[in-house]
Amino acid sequence: MSYETAANLLKRRGVSVESIAEIVYKLQKPYNPHLQLSECEESVIAVLRKREVQYTLYTGIALDELAERRLLPQPLQAIMEADESLYGVDETLALGITNVYGMIGLTSFGYLDKEKVGIIRTLNNKKSEIHVFLDDLVAGLAAAASARIAHAGQNAHEYAADSDQGEPAG
Amino acid sequence: MSYETAANLLKRRGVSVESIAEIVYKLQKPYNPHLQLSECEESVIAVLRKREVQYTLYTGIALDELAERRLLPQPLQAIMEADESLYGVDETLALGITNVYGMIGLTSFGYLDKEKVGIIRTLNNKKSEIHVFLDDLVAGLAAAASARIAHAGQNAHEYAADSDQGEPAG
Amino acid sequence: MSYETAANLLKRRGVSVESIAEIVYKLQKPYNPHLQLSECEESVIAVLRKREVQYTLYTGIALDELAERRLLPQPLQAIMEADESLYGVDETLALGITNVYGMIGLTSFGYLDKEKVGIIRTLNNKKSEIHVFLDDLVAGLAAAASARIAHAGQNAHEYAADSDQGEPAG
Amino acid sequence: MSYETAANLLKRRGVSVESIAEIVYKLQKPYNPHLQLSECEESVIAVLRKREVQYTLYTGIALDELAERRLLPQPLQAIMEADESLYGVDETLALGITNVYGMIGLTSFGYLDKEKVGIIRTLNNKKSEIHVFLDDLVAGLAAAASARIAHAGQNAHEYAADSDQGEPAG
Repeated sequence: MSYETAANLLKRRGVSVESIAEIVYKLQKPYNPHLQLSECEESVIAVLRKREVQYTLYTGIALDELAERRLLPQPLQAIMEADESLYGVDETLALGITNVYGMIGLTSFGYLDKEKVGIIRTLNNKKSEIHVFLDDLVAGLAAAASARIAHAGQNAHEYAADSDQGEPAG
Repeated sequence: MSYETAANLLKRRGVSVESIAEIVYKLQKPYNPHLQLSECEESVIAVLRKREVQYTLYTGIALDELAERRLLPQPLQAIMEADESLYGVDETLALGITNVYGMIGLTSFGYLDKEKVGIIRTLNNKKSEIHVFLDDLVAGLAAAASARIAHAGQNAHEYAADSDQGEPAG
Repeated sequence: MSYETAANLLKRRGVSVESIAEIVYKLQKPYNPHLQLSECEESVIAVLRKREVQYTLYTGIALDELAERRLLPQPLQAIMEADESLYGVDETLALGITNVYGMIGLTSFGYLDKEKVGIIRTLNNKKSEIHVFLDDLVAGLAAAASARIAHAGQNAHEYAADSDQGEPAG
Repeated sequence: MSYETAANLLKRRGVSVESIAEIVYKLQKPYNPHLQLSECEESVIAVLRKREVQYTLYTGIALDELAERRLLPQPLQAIMEADESLYGVDETLALGITNVYGMIGLTSFGYLDKEKVGIIRTLNNKKSEIHVFLDDLVAGLAAAASARIAHAGQNAHEYAADSDQGEPAG
């Protein structure tokens, strides 16, 4: 139920689950040659099922939409219209999504936010709309879905302690 | 200029600089017996002068005010009216304030947010208004101002390396 | 396998899963009158099964143990021995545990780190050992396990959008 | 004094202040055509003067050096030797540096950590040494120094409230 609410909200803002999955695919394919786009889509959906993620999306997208409708109080309205580069609340908010599969998501988030990959670039170029939050939220979603795939892969060894009763190595 | 904008915004929501300074005083007095309330007030003002802090306040307070005026889209409006305890965007946002003087602010933030000290409790009891964000923002301001006082104190020793060209101790 | 490695490591440092579960129980009981201690224990175990959490524990506890064995380079060795209150790396590290079930964990973390509840106080009083990291890590584990219980509870309503094709309320 | 300790420690690990300044210059030049390399160097030094930053450097570099000397307990020693990609403690720690001039630093941090710009690439290619933490710490330093330059620039407008006694715009 609430997954659909979140996915529909993204769709209303021009972002399909598939377009996020394509970013995840580009990020993870080099490390995972057998990766399928469908697995990336499943991973995005798993991220969108998390309540914390949904709540963050509702909040950030509401701010973008209210700015478009000029309903925000000043000076916030002006800051959002200018897409002020020193405004960091969008990055802060996205942090609540990026980390749902661990801090390794931080790297992909920053990279995507800077390089504006795929749908993030499309959003950024639509100058008639306000996407102060949405581009960071989508970068956060893609980063979290990538981290989830990385964790699910068999590429993490089991590292054993020397001995369970033992002393630390030295 | 923008300090006044931020302070006036807080005042409009029922929070004076003095009331935040009182929380800082309670937090820091045990570690700092000569601490004056005026120093705490200066520290709160220094935090409020930071652009990152101002932008975060503008955003969180706008969300509270829009919720009171029932201007938020659903389901966000309902979540804010219910003050849903699983909604963590307020904590996430406050993180952007709490840390402006380092991660040591995290401890005070969590403590204040749980114990509802001073003006934070007053806000929490005003059931006719919506303060989903404001209580966390005030806790973040007080935590950051406390961290600033702790850093300014002479209570941090200078820890010297064994030798500047030297090898690590072992 | 790696859950046991993490649990044994905590045990070696004097912290049982049960003692962390007791903190979770104290935190969550007021919101959840039917809560059983066994559920809290399960929740702590679920947190300890996460790789990110295990890696963070390995790192923080290694630093404590190396400090006890005086193997850290200066000036870090001196900072750890002094349990320097302005050292915030322990809080930073614990953030990687606290948030595995969302940012709502921040509040409990800070509260526990300040109030030194249960085993955290015991650790803090053992002045012959070094627990710069361990007390924050345990606070982070208890905060994450509490957040997990809160999320699992039926206390979150399903908030519906006005309509899936609809416009935001206004 | 402690700035020199931090700078010398970086130098011992093969990282000069100049090499970090060069990364900052590459990041900020497109937004700031009159930027001088010397300003970037000043900004790196300002970041290194912060106690929180110094403490984080001491900790991360100690872990790298102890891993090279095989003094870490298992399984941490094996994780560090493998430079396990799912180990996120290096990103977590670097967060304590990245954010000292606000959350806008997150984007540059992730970008640098992924693209391995300048000295970060050099570190990454030295396979005989262990730089699990150092590359993230340098990315964090460069990101924070960039954020500092961005904040210092005159490129942020003063956004005024409609009126200091006024109601929010609507």
